[in-house]
Formats: sequence, C-alpha cells, structure tokens
Amino acid sequence: MADSESPIDDLDRQIIHALQGDARHTSASEIAESLDVSARTVRNRINNLEEAGIIRGYNVDVDYEAAGYQLHTLIVCTAPIHEREEIAQHALEVDGVVAIREVMTGAENVHIEVVGVDSNDLSRIGRDLNDVGLTVVDEDLIRNEYTRPFHQFSAGAATDDN
Amino acid sequence: MADSESPIDDLDRQIIHALQGDARHTSASEIAESLDVSARTVRNRINNLEEAGIIRGYNVDVDYEAAGYQLHTLIVCTAPIHEREEIAQHALEVDGVVAIREVMTGAENVHIEVVGVDSNDLSRIGRDLNDVGLTVVDEDLIRNEYTRPFHQFSAGAATDDN
Amino acid sequence: MADSESPIDDLDRQIIHALQGDARHTSASEIAESLDVSARTVRNRINNLEEAGIIRGYNVDVDYEAAGYQLHTLIVCTAPIHEREEIAQHALEVDGVVAIREVMTGAENVHIEVVGVDSNDLSRIGRDLNDVGLTVVDEDLIRNEYTRPFHQFSAGAATDDN
Amino acid sequence: MADSESPIDDLDRQIIHALQGDARHTSASEIAESLDVSARTVRNRINNLEEAGIIRGYNVDVDYEAAGYQLHTLIVCTAPIHEREEIAQHALEVDGVVAIREVMTGAENVHIEVVGVDSNDLSRIGRDLNDVGLTVVDEDLIRNEYTRPFHQFSAGAATDDN
Amino acid sequence: MADSESPIDDLDRQIIHALQGDARHTSASEIAESLDVSARTVRNRINNLEEAGIIRGYNVDVDYEAAGYQLHTLIVCTAPIHEREEIAQHALEVDGVVAIREVMTGAENVHIEVVGVDSNDLSRIGRDLNDVGLTVVDEDLIRNEYTRPFHQFSAGAATDDN
Amino acid sequence: MADSESPIDDLDRQIIHALQGDARHTSASEIAESLDVSARTVRNRINNLEEAGIIRGYNVDVDYEAAGYQLHTLIVCTAPIHEREEIAQHALEVDGVVAIREVMTGAENVHIEVVGVDSNDLSRIGRDLNDVGLTVVDEDLIRNEYTRPFHQFSAGAATDDN
Amino acid sequence: MADSESPIDDLDRQIIHALQGDARHTSASEIAESLDVSARTVRNRINNLEEAGIIRGYNVDVDYEAAGYQLHTLIVCTAPIHEREEIAQHALEVDGVVAIREVMTGAENVHIEVVGVDSNDLSRIGRDLNDVGLTVVDEDLIRNEYTRPFHQFSAGAATDDN
Amino acid sequence: MADSESPIDDLDRQIIHALQGDARHTSASEIAESLDVSARTVRNRINNLEEAGIIRGYNVDVDYEAAGYQLHTLIVCTAPIHEREEIAQHALEVDGVVAIREVMTGAENVHIEVVGVDSNDLSRIGRDLNDVGLTVVDEDLIRNEYTRPFHQFSAGAATDDN
Repeated sequence: MADSESPIDDLDRQIIHALQGDARHTSASEIAESLDVSARTVRNRINNLEEAGIIRGYNVDVDYEAAGYQLHTLIVCTAPIHEREEIAQHALEVDGVVAIREVMTGAENVHIEVVGVDSNDLSRIGRDLNDVGLTVVDEDLIRNEYTRPFHQFSAGAATDDN
Repeated sequence: MADSESPIDDLDRQIIHALQGDARHTSASEIAESLDVSARTVRNRINNLEEAGIIRGYNVDVDYEAAGYQLHTLIVCTAPIHEREEIAQHALEVDGVVAIREVMTGAENVHIEVVGVDSNDLSRIGRDLNDVGLTVVDEDLIRNEYTRPFHQFSAGAATDDN
Repeated sequence: MADSESPIDDLDRQIIHALQGDARHTSASEIAESLDVSARTVRNRINNLEEAGIIRGYNVDVDYEAAGYQLHTLIVCTAPIHEREEIAQHALEVDGVVAIREVMTGAENVHIEVVGVDSNDLSRIGRDLNDVGLTVVDEDLIRNEYTRPFHQFSAGAATDDN
Repeated sequence: MADSESPIDDLDRQIIHALQGDARHTSASEIAESLDVSARTVRNRINNLEEAGIIRGYNVDVDYEAAGYQLHTLIVCTAPIHEREEIAQHALEVDGVVAIREVMTGAENVHIEVVGVDSNDLSRIGRDLNDVGLTVVDEDLIRNEYTRPFHQFSAGAATDDN
Repeated sequence: MADSESPIDDLDRQIIHALQGDARHTSASEIAESLDVSARTVRNRINNLEEAGIIRGYNVDVDYEAAGYQLHTLIVCTAPIHEREEIAQHALEVDGVVAIREVMTGAENVHIEVVGVDSNDLSRIGRDLNDVGLTVVDEDLIRNEYTRPFHQFSAGAATDDN
Repeated sequence: MADSESPIDDLDRQIIHALQGDARHTSASEIAESLDVSARTVRNRINNLEEAGIIRGYNVDVDYEAAGYQLHTLIVCTAPIHEREEIAQHALEVDGVVAIREVMTGAENVHIEVVGVDSNDLSRIGRDLNDVGLTVVDEDLIRNEYTRPFHQFSAGAATDDN
Repeated sequence: MADSESPIDDLDRQIIHALQGDARHTSASEIAESLDVSARTVRNRINNLEEAGIIRGYNVDVDYEAAGYQLHTLIVCTAPIHEREEIAQHALEVDGVVAIREVMTGAENVHIEVVGVDSNDLSRIGRDLNDVGLTVVDEDLIRNEYTRPFHQFSAGAATDDN
Repeated sequence: MADSESPIDDLDRQIIHALQGDARHTSASEIAESLDVSARTVRNRINNLEEAGIIRGYNVDVDYEAAGYQLHTLIVCTAPIHEREEIAQHALEVDGVVAIREVMTGAENVHIEVVGVDSNDLSRIGRDLNDVGLTVVDEDLIRNEYTRPFHQFSAGAATDDN
C-alpha cells in the first residue's frame, strides 16, 4: 500500500463527485459536458469504478418517518472481533435491517440501521440480532440525516491536490 | 400522527423497494414493468415522493479505502441537545465530512462520516468539528458497509401488511 | 400500524385525562358532567379501554419512606435481550419488588422498584434478582416521585390536535 | 428516625395492600369486609393516610402504545445535585412529561417518563428538559410495565413481621 | 425494623463519640467524668455495645507510606452478587489485604485496601483476588485518609435529636 | 526515598501488628510480654510512631446499621485534581461525614463514608458536598466491613522479610 | 498521500529493522555487512532518515522500578481537541514526565509516562498536568514493557511486500 | 524494598540521563568527559546497568506515518489479570505489533502499539490479539510522540536529591 500508485485519477474523482450530488438524475452526458470529456469516457470510467468495487452501488435516501415509520432506529452492537464480518453478514438477513456499518474497534463495532413497524417489531429485531451473535449496546431513534460530496473529489480540490 | 392516514401506499413502497436495489441503473420503465403499471405512473410517483421529502436524494456508495483513502472514519460526537440540528448543519460544511446522522439521545448524538487525506487532515477535521460546537467522543476507522432494501416495502410484505 | 386508524378518540382521551388527575376519587358521573356526556357513556368507555388493555389498571402512589421504609430503591438491571420479557415476569415474583419497567436497549434494560425492610433484605432481593437471570448494574434510593396527566389528553390539546 | 415509632400499623398496611391490587374498583366496603373492620374505619384510615402524605394519589396505568402513541419514552437525565428537586418541579411542567422520579446519586438522578406525539415532539421535549437545567443522558422506548402490591403489606406478612 | 425501638440510647451515643476521638488513649474514667456517670457504667455500656456487635473493634490508623510502603492501594472489585459476602471472606485471607468494605450495588461492590511491598507483590495480590472470584476493576494509590466522630453522637446533637 | 533507610524496624512492625488486632484492649505490657521487650520500650516506640505520624490515631469500628442507622453510605466523588486535598478538608466539616479517603487518580478520587439519619439528611449531605466543590458520582449503601493486621508486620513475616 | 511514492525503500526498512534490534550497539558496519552494502551507504541512509524525521531519535529503555523508583506510572489525560498538540508540548516540561503520546480521539487522547519519587511527587505531577490544561482521567502503575522490530521492515517481509 | 539500599547511585543516574538525550550518537567518551570520569568507568557502569536489567535496551523512535504507514495505532486491550504477563508475551509474536506495555489495573491493562499496512491488516491484527486471549477495547491512531530524559537523573537534580 505504502508505495502503490493511486487507484483512481482526477477524472475518476470528478465523476464520483458529480454522482455524489445526485446519483440518479445525473446522466453520464451531463457529467461529460461539465468535465469536457466524452459521455462514452464517463460511462467507461463509471463502469470501471463499479467493477473495481470503488463504487459499490447507489442508494436511495428515504425519510422513513415522513413515510409513516416512526421507529427508524440506530442499533449499536458489539460483535466478537474475530467473527465481526461473518456476523454482520447474518445480521443483514434480519427483517427490518436496512444498512450495516462495521467499525474497527473492540466494542460497539457494528452499527445497524433498522426500521421497526411497531415496538413489538423492534423487540423482535433486537432478539434476532442477538441470535446471530451480536450484543446490543444501545438503541436510538434516528432523526436527521445529511450527505454531501467529498470535497477532495471536486475539480478545484483535485487540482490543488496534485 | 396517531390517527393520520399513512403517507404512502403499497405502490409507493414497491417503487422505493425497487430503487433501493439500485438507485441509478433501475429505470422507471423497468420498475413499471415489474409492478404492472405504466412508466408514467412510476415517474409521477417518484416525483411525488421526492417533492414530499420522503425520497431525499440518491447516494453513491463509495469504498474510500479501495479509492486510496485509508482514513475513512466514523467520528462520534456530542452536541448540546438544544443546538444539535444547527450544529449538525455547520458540521456539514467542514471539509472531509461526507455524511452526518443525528440520533435522539443526550450524548454521542451526532455521528459523522469523514474521509481524511492523512492524519494531519484528520486532526484538522477534529478541530473544525470542535470549533462548530461538537465534543468529539470517539473516532473509529470504518470497515465494511452494506445496505439492503426495507423488507416491508417488498411486494409480498406490503400485501401481508395490509 | 403506519396506516391504521387511531385506537382511541377524543372522548377516550379526555376520560383518561380525568382519571389521571385522581384515579380513585373521580367518579364516572363527575367525568360525565365535566365532558357533557352521560355517566353511562363514561362507564362504557372506561370499560372498553380496560378491555382493550389501554387502561391496564389503577395504582396507589405510596410514599414508602413516610410509611417507615427507608430503603425504597430503584435497582437497574440488564437482562439478556432475548429473555428480557420472561425474566421480568420472574422478577415480579421476588418479594419486595413493587414495579418493573422494561426499556428497549441492550443494557440496563430492566428497571425495578423495590422496598427493602433492612439492608439484609435488600441484599436478599439483589440475590433473588440475580437468580432469575438479571445482572444488577446499580441501586439507588428513590427520593421524590411525581405524576401528571398527559397534556395531549386534555380537552384543549385534543381539540388543537384534531 | 432511628428511635421513632412506626408511622403506620398493620391495618394501614393491609388497606394499602388492598388498594395496590386495584385502586379504583376496590371500595372501602370490600376492604372492610375482607379485613373484618367497619367501612367507616377503612374510610377514616385512607383519609388519614392521604392527609399524612403516605398515600400521595391514585394513578391510572395507561398502555400508551396501545393508545396509538409509539414514542412512550424513558428519558434519563442528570440534575446538579443541589438543584435536583427544584429542577424536577420545572420539568414536570414540560408538555409530554407524565411522571418524574428522582434518585439519590450524582448522575442520572432524574428519570422522566414522557409521551411524544412524533419525533419532532420528542426533540422538543429534550430541548425543553435541557432548558430547565437537565442534562439528558439517554432516551429509551418503554416496553412492558408491571406493578404488584408490596408483599410486606399483605395480612400474613404483616403478622409475621410483628 | 420500621417500628422497632432504637437499639442504642443517648449515653451509648456519647460514649461512642468519645471513643471516636481516640479509641486507645481515652479511658472509661475520662469518658465517665465528661458525661457525669460512673466509670463502671461506661465500662458496662462499652461491653454491651461490643457484645451486641455495634462496636466491632478498634483499629489503628497507619500511614503506610510514612512507614516506608509506597504501594498502599485501593483495589475496586466486582463480586457476583449472590457470592459477595463469601468471596469477601476469602479475600480477607489474601496476604497484603488490610481491610475490605462491601457496598450494595451490582458492580464495583467490593473495595479492598491493600499494602504491596513492591509491584511484583501488588501483581500477586491482584492474581490472588482474581483467584477467589473477584474481578478487579481499578487500582489506585491511596493518599490522605481522615476520620472524625459522627456528629449525631455528640452530646448536643443527641439532645437536639430527641 | 529511593535510597533512604526504612523509617521503621521489625520491633515497630510487630508492635503495630499487635495494635491492629485490638487497638484498645491490648496494653503495652501485653505487647511487651509477647515480644520479649520491656513495657517501657513498647510505650516509647508507640509514642515515637505517633509523633512521626506513622500511627495517625485509633478508630472505633461501628456497625451503624446495628446502631439503628440504615443509611450508612459510601459517596464516591470527584474533586478537581489541584484542589483535592483542600476540598477534602472542607468535606470533613460536613455533618454526617465520618471518614474520607483520597485516592490518586483523575475521577472518583474522593471516597466519603457518611451516616444519614433519613433520606432528607442524605440529600442534604449530597448538597453540602457539592457546595464544598465535590461532584458526587455515586452513592451506595455500605454493608459489611472487615479489617485485619498487615501480614508483613507479623513476627514471622518481618523475619522472613529481613 | 493517496498517490505519492513511498517515502522509504527496502534498504531503508532493513536498516531501521536492524536498529530496532539494538539502537546503540549495532554499528553501521555491522548493518552494512548483514545487508551486503557499504557502511558509507548505511551511514548516509541513517543520516537521511534522521533528517527526514522518519527516525526521530534513539531512546534508552529504563526499568525504573529496578532502578529504585516504584511509582513509574501511566497517566491518561484528556486535552481539548483543538489544543492537544500545544498542551502536550507544555506537559513535556513538567518534571517527572519522561514520554508523551497523543492519540487521535476525543477523550483520553494524551497518554503520559511519568516517574514519581514518592506519592507527594506524583500528586504534584497531577496538579502540574492539570495546570497546563489536561484533565487527568486515570493513573496506573506501569509493569512490564516490551518492544520488537516492525516485521514489515525485515528483509523477507520487505521482499514479499514488493 | 522499603529498607533496601538504592540500586543505583548518582553517577549511574547521570549516565542514563546522558543516554536518554540520544542513545545512539552519545559515546561513552563524551559522557565520561561531561561527567569528569574515565570512559572505562562509563562503559563499566553501562555494562552493569544492562546486566542488572535496569537498562533493558535501546530503541529507535520511528515516525511511521512519515515512513508511509498511516495506520500506526494504539490498541488498548484487557487481559484476564492472572494471565496478563503470559498473554502479553504471546501478543508480542503477532505481526505488526512493535511495542507492548502492561499496566496494573483490572481492565484496559495491556496497551499495544501496532503498525498496520492497510485496514485488512489492522483487522487481522485485532483478530490475532483476540486469539491470544486479549479483549480489544479501543483502537486509536497514534499522532505525535515525544520523550525527554528523567529530570531526577540530571546532575543538578541528583545533587539536590541527595
């Protein structure tokens, strides 16, 4: 790692930056025009980024409470450190789970976003997570969520950076 | 809330479910075909969901480490409870921040996803978050991240549910 | 849940509100008069609320210290998440326990109100709770306790709310 | 305290015990009959217990989730130790608060039961509690709640005890 | 308990108060003179307090650091709640332990005062405590220690109090 | 310190050991006889140990609960590190405090033993400790307390040790 | 960073690896011989590594307890995040401090190794650290310490790695 | 210990102090000259200090981030107290570990400095540490590190001290 070439170049960064603004309604042609390259180049680059696993997918950002689900919850769990990845995979199968993030530490190392239909359902999710080997540490209702593009991927930052 | 109509119906749920699979490469036509409605209906529904704020946007899921950024980090912070929302807005302006989630509790109530270029940059981000009024509680490297559609939005579950 | 009708209406709310003021000395007739409905209606509504489990019972609020019991104590415990409800039922059988509340989180999820006759008795209660599967986390003497009616159930709030 | 007479006697205890079973539907006559004293005695005793503040009131035990309110929540707070009682009084004025319990320790010494209409409302309650001087430490959804009479107040126990 | 007579009277309290000032160099005669009773009465009372277990013994307050032992340490441990008393008895047999206090809570419920000859010795004490069933939570060097008589036992307070 | 002579010798140690068994009822003559030195030597040594501050005093070990005081409590506090000693001195003036121990760490560094007459009194003690600058962290009822002589001071150990 | 060349090459790594074995008694000539390069090359490389700040210095690993200092202690502190580096510099001036390590998190972010002459000295160090702006969180005696060369710097690992 | 002679004298202290300034580039001759003794004496003393284990070795202080390794990390672990030393020895065998420090307390008693090549490598190290019996509690990136000589070893301090 320490001495490897960077896996992506400035054009890749700028394309990801454009997608980070709106991953659905931003066409390859629009990106191409703004970056002064061909749409074909943009499509190829996106395809390569997807195949390399640098772009893992495209998510829709749902406001669950606005959709009528009040129990949109972050469940913070601890997995035994040597089974964390395997357990996280099983947790992803639990109904109500919509996202999982593993972090690198000894406790509270699996953060799970769930949507509960009612509190019985939330209790059921807690038991299911327990059954796959997680220790539930805390549960908190999720309020606001925001995202923004990574500033290092914007054209100016990329130029400054190199 | 307690006695209001549900803000969305089964068709809305199934459309969101389809988008949750792949928010970029799933066209309205494909969704329409799978749900046996017109593409125009799907486009209208998506438009309505966006305008109602139920769909807040579309994100690209980037594997930052694969892209050459090792310091992809979750910073857990505490905001004073009466300023949490305002502070979170300011935190979103800090370079390196790519996502913020507020949770409803007294401490560790703002979870921030950042990408640091190097450890000086990560230190700078910590200071910037401190300057907008956050108390940094912990910082952990992010490892794996997974998402999946909300099972209650799938066709079968929606039918069961009503 | 998300799209169901509200289980109770404004009249139910106002009746509960009246009972929350004084659950023993407030007769159905008095409630009826204040709400301008018949006493029979009030009695029927209360009966229905009880049968639906929305009213679970009526408690007397005892000041145990004033009654000569200094060791009126809140014992905060952790139950394994998948056995929490069953264990709480067993804990209710322990002599000295007067109330139990389960909360939805991974630790410190069972809060138990006990009255100890002396410190030997309190030690015995701790051991008994341990024997039914609870891990005692903390014990604190209870000082003041207050209740008030839910403001959303008052006539004005209910009107505003609808 | 150490050398005072007990504030209540066995008959008081047995009357409270009867009320702890059902504080609304248990008449003085029924209690009198079961304890083999006159109803007038029971009424006098209850009156005296109320005036002495040993019986502080009668509560109705509401299942808020069954009533359509999913966000029935325990908010654990810390009050500065020398202002705890005064702050608790102010917290009781916050809309949505239905009960407060103070415990005797340095942190997490005020436990507040609230009912939120939606998550905006719950956020508002958190800010209001902060404004009266409380530091919110944790918020957890309340699940099951149970009560039972104090076993030392039952006829047999009281006899054993004296 | 609630209605029992106080186990000790004012004279007992004042005698204990005198002993709390200096348990070795305060003779029964001196106490007798200051309280205006006979030395025989004082001796009888002390004897009775010892037999009743109200006076458990007389300790010498040693400044271990002044005596050349730098590693005078408080070791805070957790014992399983149902074995706490038995384990504490075994811990008292560990060489280097000079005092043990049990407190009534779920964790950090056994506080042990030890004197270590050197850090190997302190490590050995930690292992020995572990072997009798204690979980060591923290170890801190003891600095200053002070005692004073219980103010409620002084003549004036006792008079006020009765 | 590192290269100083030991402040006490074996005879000192053995005399302290004898006093640790029973600091009141063990006369200098008895100690002298058991150690085969003159009573005058023992008295001189004790006097020297007291003047050097190695023996700080003699305490009576009271079982407060047996004496009718149920609220015998350990209050764990945090003092600002640079004021710890001064604050501890002020805390010693608070009525109800009977002993204070400072430990060398940043938090929970002042452990206070108090006797409360009733819970109002215990609340008052908490406020008084707060007023002298302490942050109360926890309060736990004290159960059993045991002491034993320091084994390194016994004749055999002292011989082994030198 | 992401796309830069590695700052050091295999020869640098192997030279550091040799120094990590014994930084004093391993001469440039010995390193040269084992790596089959000239001693001049080794000296130049070491000089360059020192000038680039990659080698910051050479420490002697002292067993303070063996040297007669029992209070060799790790003091864990929290610095305000935006002043951490400046405060650490001031802490380095405190007598008794022998090493400081800053870690990147919000609390317990400055770990300080100190040697105290006696407990008064250790208390003085705690106050001095407090005075430069640190909050002392914990203090623990240091027992064993071990180091070993970084395996990635050994000849074989370096070869595998490139 | 309490009554032993100091293991080292002033000259030893001053020699160690000189080595603490720069353990590689400070020759015995230079130390000899500054302390006005023969180089042979210095060499003999250093040899004796090494043989007595008072000097355990000489370390090179590497800035791993400057060397291209961003994941230079402090892993704080808990070892069962009776196996701490044995487990630490095994942890030293884990690839990536460069230093281990044991501290004397019940939890977080093993502090491990590791260098990870990338986050997969860091995850592997965490699992390996878990496999040797450690519970990983926290992981934090290491930022700045500083050392300085022990002030008590300098000529002036030693003179003052004796």
